[in-house]
Amino acid sequence: MVSKNQIKLINSLQQKKYRQQHQLFIAEGVKVIQELLASNILLEHLYVTEDLFASVEVAKKTLISESDLKKISCLATPNNCLALFQVPTPKEVTENGLIIALDDVRDPGNLGTIIRLCDWYGVTQIVCSEQTVDVYNPKVVQATMGSISRVAMAYLDLNEFLKKAKGNVFGTFMDGKNVYKEHLPASGILVLGNEANGISADVEQLVKQRLAIPRFGAIQQTESLNVATATAIFLSEFKRNE
Amino acid sequence: MVSKNQIKLINSLQQKKYRQQHQLFIAEGVKVIQELLASNILLEHLYVTEDLFASVEVAKKTLISESDLKKISCLATPNNCLALFQVPTPKEVTENGLIIALDDVRDPGNLGTIIRLCDWYGVTQIVCSEQTVDVYNPKVVQATMGSISRVAMAYLDLNEFLKKAKGNVFGTFMDGKNVYKEHLPASGILVLGNEANGISADVEQLVKQRLAIPRFGAIQQTESLNVATATAIFLSEFKRNE
Repeated sequence: MVSKNQIKLINSLQQKKYRQQHQLFIAEGVKVIQELLASNILLEHLYVTEDLFASVEVAKKTLISESDLKKISCLATPNNCLALFQVPTPKEVTENGLIIALDDVRDPGNLGTIIRLCDWYGVTQIVCSEQTVDVYNPKVVQATMGSISRVAMAYLDLNEFLKKAKGNVFGTFMDGKNVYKEHLPASGILVLGNEANGISADVEQLVKQRLAIPRFGAIQQTESLNVATATAIFLSEFKRNE
Repeated sequence: MVSKNQIKLINSLQQKKYRQQHQLFIAEGVKVIQELLASNILLEHLYVTEDLFASVEVAKKTLISESDLKKISCLATPNNCLALFQVPTPKEVTENGLIIALDDVRDPGNLGTIIRLCDWYGVTQIVCSEQTVDVYNPKVVQATMGSISRVAMAYLDLNEFLKKAKGNVFGTFMDGKNVYKEHLPASGILVLGNEANGISADVEQLVKQRLAIPRFGAIQQTESLNVATATAIFLSEFKRNE
């Protein structure tokens, strides 16, 4: 049984303000929850429907009806489980290996895809401007497919961070140098910008090396690649010779 | 003024059956419509709200109220214009350069992203299994951002097509050979599979060279990359030395 107050609390966690207040976030679906349970992120509570309840070996679990699950789910088609996890304490960023820096990436799906890509390519740290979408937004958590537990996220003043950075700062621009022809080191910071406006003027001044994915083909009209797609290609280039 | 019958017709075009019957599809937003108007895809009719109406130099245009636009739009937040275009006659596929083959890609956003990527990398032909999401699905048209006019799409029996193919057939599998270490020719067919199940067993038998994007990093738990993200990385690898 889930109380009205619990439903109210869980619904409030769709908003960043309440996630910060309660230091909790929502995860849904067996795969994402399993990956988080296997990580060092702490479970607060698990809500499970009857079909799955007996098979779940977790102490902090509550049986939930399908209609109550609908009330707390963020999905159009709810799964058979929803979990609350504790927001982990952010780790300090250490300049080591390749770091991805996001300058106001706003779309939850894009951030989720970027985290999943970082996990795949062994990039363990992402730094985000304070305006970047919150990693504990339920849509981001869902899109990461569990990778969220293996990539450390830091929200900070990106200008201050880049000013103090010791490594090379790469940035992605339409007029940058051909990424396929540049030397790309194993360490450094790669900045990716906002979906509509790219990298902001302040951050642009702190970029030391401008990179671009060249366009191919006779008709070159595609305006730009999506930021998540571009991240895939840049990560592939930084990592392919490792 | 838009008649009830027109509204009914336009709404019906959200379904593949009626797009095929009327040979029409919907495009929304200034950017997508502009790119289609500049292509050889033929405009059937344009519906424009008052703020934009005077500036549009198109004969086949109708003034539409914002409330009527809401009735015909496929978007949660409608733009200020919606156009109907004629479905172009499919071009015959010619084995020339790199061809992307999609084996039951179902997500409209993924297909849109793949078309945009093909456009960027100068890949002008995509062949799709008959179960692949329809390219004239409004969500696909939207996600292509206009690239739809520059990439020829063919829906066909993928097994038959691959059986007759003269060029090398590459396929993407978790256990394929490291794409970063294989020789990738300028011509050939690259098969990408369904979001959940990958490449089907029938098509798998026709693949001559199995490719994979290797995982990096100490903890290798990421299950797989999204098909659109994987397409980005494979296209980048096939094209980077051109």
